[in-house]
Amino acid sequence: MESLRITLEQSEIPTHWYNVVADLPHPPPPPLGPDGKPVAAEQMGLIFPTAILEQEMSAERWIPIPDAVREVYRLWRPSPLIRARRLEELLGTPARIYYKYEGVSPAGSHKPNTAVPQAFYNRQAGIRRITTETGAGQWGCSMAFAGQMFGLDVRVYMVKISYQQKPFRRSMMQTWGAEVFASPSPMTQTGRDLLAKDPANQGSLGIAISEAVEEAASRPDTSYALGSVLNHVALHQTIIGQEAKAQFAKVGDWPDVVFAPCGGGSSFAGAAFPFLADNAAGGRQGRPTRLVAVEPTSCPTLTKGTYAYDFGDASGFTPLMKMYTLGHDFMPPGIHAGGLRYHGDSPLVSQLYHDGLIEAVAVSQLATFEAGVTFARAEGVIPAPESNHAIRAAIDEALRCKTNGEARTILVNLTGHGHFDMAAYDRYFAGELEDFEYPVEAIRDSLKRLPKVG
Amino acid sequence: MESLRITLEQSEIPTHWYNVVADLPHPPPPPLGPDGKPVAAEQMGLIFPTAILEQEMSAERWIPIPDAVREVYRLWRPSPLIRARRLEELLGTPARIYYKYEGVSPAGSHKPNTAVPQAFYNRQAGIRRITTETGAGQWGCSMAFAGQMFGLDVRVYMVKISYQQKPFRRSMMQTWGAEVFASPSPMTQTGRDLLAKDPANQGSLGIAISEAVEEAASRPDTSYALGSVLNHVALHQTIIGQEAKAQFAKVGDWPDVVFAPCGGGSSFAGAAFPFLADNAAGGRQGRPTRLVAVEPTSCPTLTKGTYAYDFGDASGFTPLMKMYTLGHDFMPPGIHAGGLRYHGDSPLVSQLYHDGLIEAVAVSQLATFEAGVTFARAEGVIPAPESNHAIRAAIDEALRCKTNGEARTILVNLTGHGHFDMAAYDRYFAGELEDFEYPVEAIRDSLKRLPKVG
Repeated sequence: MESLRITLEQSEIPTHWYNVVADLPHPPPPPLGPDGKPVAAEQMGLIFPTAILEQEMSAERWIPIPDAVREVYRLWRPSPLIRARRLEELLGTPARIYYKYEGVSPAGSHKPNTAVPQAFYNRQAGIRRITTETGAGQWGCSMAFAGQMFGLDVRVYMVKISYQQKPFRRSMMQTWGAEVFASPSPMTQTGRDLLAKDPANQGSLGIAISEAVEEAASRPDTSYALGSVLNHVALHQTIIGQEAKAQFAKVGDWPDVVFAPCGGGSSFAGAAFPFLADNAAGGRQGRPTRLVAVEPTSCPTLTKGTYAYDFGDASGFTPLMKMYTLGHDFMPPGIHAGGLRYHGDSPLVSQLYHDGLIEAVAVSQLATFEAGVTFARAEGVIPAPESNHAIRAAIDEALRCKTNGEARTILVNLTGHGHFDMAAYDRYFAGELEDFEYPVEAIRDSLKRLPKVG
Repeated sequence: MESLRITLEQSEIPTHWYNVVADLPHPPPPPLGPDGKPVAAEQMGLIFPTAILEQEMSAERWIPIPDAVREVYRLWRPSPLIRARRLEELLGTPARIYYKYEGVSPAGSHKPNTAVPQAFYNRQAGIRRITTETGAGQWGCSMAFAGQMFGLDVRVYMVKISYQQKPFRRSMMQTWGAEVFASPSPMTQTGRDLLAKDPANQGSLGIAISEAVEEAASRPDTSYALGSVLNHVALHQTIIGQEAKAQFAKVGDWPDVVFAPCGGGSSFAGAAFPFLADNAAGGRQGRPTRLVAVEPTSCPTLTKGTYAYDFGDASGFTPLMKMYTLGHDFMPPGIHAGGLRYHGDSPLVSQLYHDGLIEAVAVSQLATFEAGVTFARAEGVIPAPESNHAIRAAIDEALRCKTNGEARTILVNLTGHGHFDMAAYDRYFAGELEDFEYPVEAIRDSLKRLPKVG
């Protein structure tokens, strides 16, 4: 009996994370302070422990994974690489479709891959309390779980629209012992100011970040943890792609193309970066593996944004980062892939895209749900709306393979299950969801408010 | 690095189900018709296809699993056996605790183990449509998924209180293409009669069964599928215990005791029956493995019921089965472990209990949630309320081991995750849940209405 699931032993959990900075054609532009000069490590030290700052700045190719982190990873890793044989048959494609299934983690997504080391390093540095933000709730759940593993208190600012749409993600965080607030909240100055202007403010990831950072910066026993965007987050996620490479090697196959959803960029980075090391050497099969970031047309950061210095949050609390951005006060519509509603993108992903080493494509909401339902009915797994973006692009590619008679190998980063997103599926079935293509003029408008640098 | 997860290759998926009837000390009492005589196969043929009826009546020890069924099992099986090392450390017990994790199935529970073969055999017999009932929604989701795998229409009668408390289980069924009705419903005579008497009737598994059976019996293209209780269901679930045995053999350990939640009995049967084959031969370690069914104090079928012939449903539509029962019109309170709210128990489980070959224990609701939260905070996985019953009993056993200094090996059948039960966890944290021990007088009262036989 052919095995659909390609598994690794727990002893094969990677011992190091892969740092793509070592293989970049040129060094990443540094984060800048309000004065336009590179941010000193001491300033970042207000909200991050030293070990994490070192990873954020590092150019070392391999960073060892602490034993205590691998110990927690063992609860669900290595995650399976699964051949989507029934989906291939349904599509009638000669393509081979594999998905790396990160929904097996306790929190149901790839996010614990970085939440766990972040909790570990903070605990090691004597920190007692973590503040963070969450969009769809996947990151907040992951940080709540990770905090519990290392005995840290966790306080989560949850984007208000998700707090309302996804009450059970909140319950899940509470089951793991975290405190959860709808953002904007009355807990911070940022939140109070926004609520004074508009009590009905639905929130955004940028606002929630501002709140969490503000609180962490004001308390010495408290650190901030970010679930995406930053270099150390991308680093931790590379365990996904590294495992996938080992799994492909095991069955003697190799992806021609990798599709991953791209919001802040960590799930894309996790799946794609390890293949860049091979691409830099000409590709494992004599040609590079195509690496495609899939984003929503409603928040088209890479495909419609600008590569420029901008704030990471809505209110200008963070350092400036060089990245593709739609403008820090860009307010995306309330689409259901909450995890992809971020105005910017990981500086590393942005740089790679700017240098032409990776690709990007934007897909519309209805098409992603159609893909998700097709996937669920073929493979059983009901994917998260974020993951549906990568599935949509993979199905499109498989259909192109059918037209062209090409037996390509496709890898999808299936970042999480949709068990807490069934209300979104409901609305899709009821015909209540809409496509939303952000008007170019609106983007042009928010880009006018980019900070001036130098 | 020690492996916490004991996995099997997909080629090691068992090729046969184990039929415990072959190892019973005496043959099972037959189901009886309204006339008190054994039911003829032709009558059952109204709602079940021949292949399933044959399994229901079979005394063969090994029943082959069709390739097409193993093909679908491959989407998630073999399920992992996981050493709960962090829980052991938290409890400070010398016991070794393992859990067989059935939450990895697409539907999130053990139920697809039987839904898939039931869909297959019906499809093979030319049936186009399946009716069924669901309590907590786990079974309905499983049947919806399985129907989708074999191109069958599925219609689910969902106990009204669950339909209201667990809307996302309904969405999940719909994602897999099923139709779902709150039961009692206006779709059947049974439902209409009950609603006429009490429009606010919250429903019960017995009522929902009546509705699904009524519809199946009235249409030749439609079969009925039951998610528990019957012999063929118990048979299909034995894949759990068989895999667990192979996994224990792989690491050179063996359970001294198995705990499984017990409502209709299929999850208990699945985990426990395969060990009875070894017990019958004196036990793999020279002593039998203790097999413990764990039920709620609010619906204490084995521990407080009577071993007698009774109807399987509330309105007396089904044949009479000899089983432990609280009376077919017993109405359990609206506890959150909806899957355990059934007035009877599997005739095979009942017979084994009556013969003293297995044990039973009842646990109260608050204690089960306390166990579930402890488990989630130690192991990450948030269990379904049903599974929390087995976890409670296992933790109690592990604590006894600590007191007595005994290094016993404990197996828990962790039948599903709690992703669709977070509202119940919320209520537990809010102090809104109660313990409910069913008064002996109330049970005595409903037992007065047992049907007269012979």
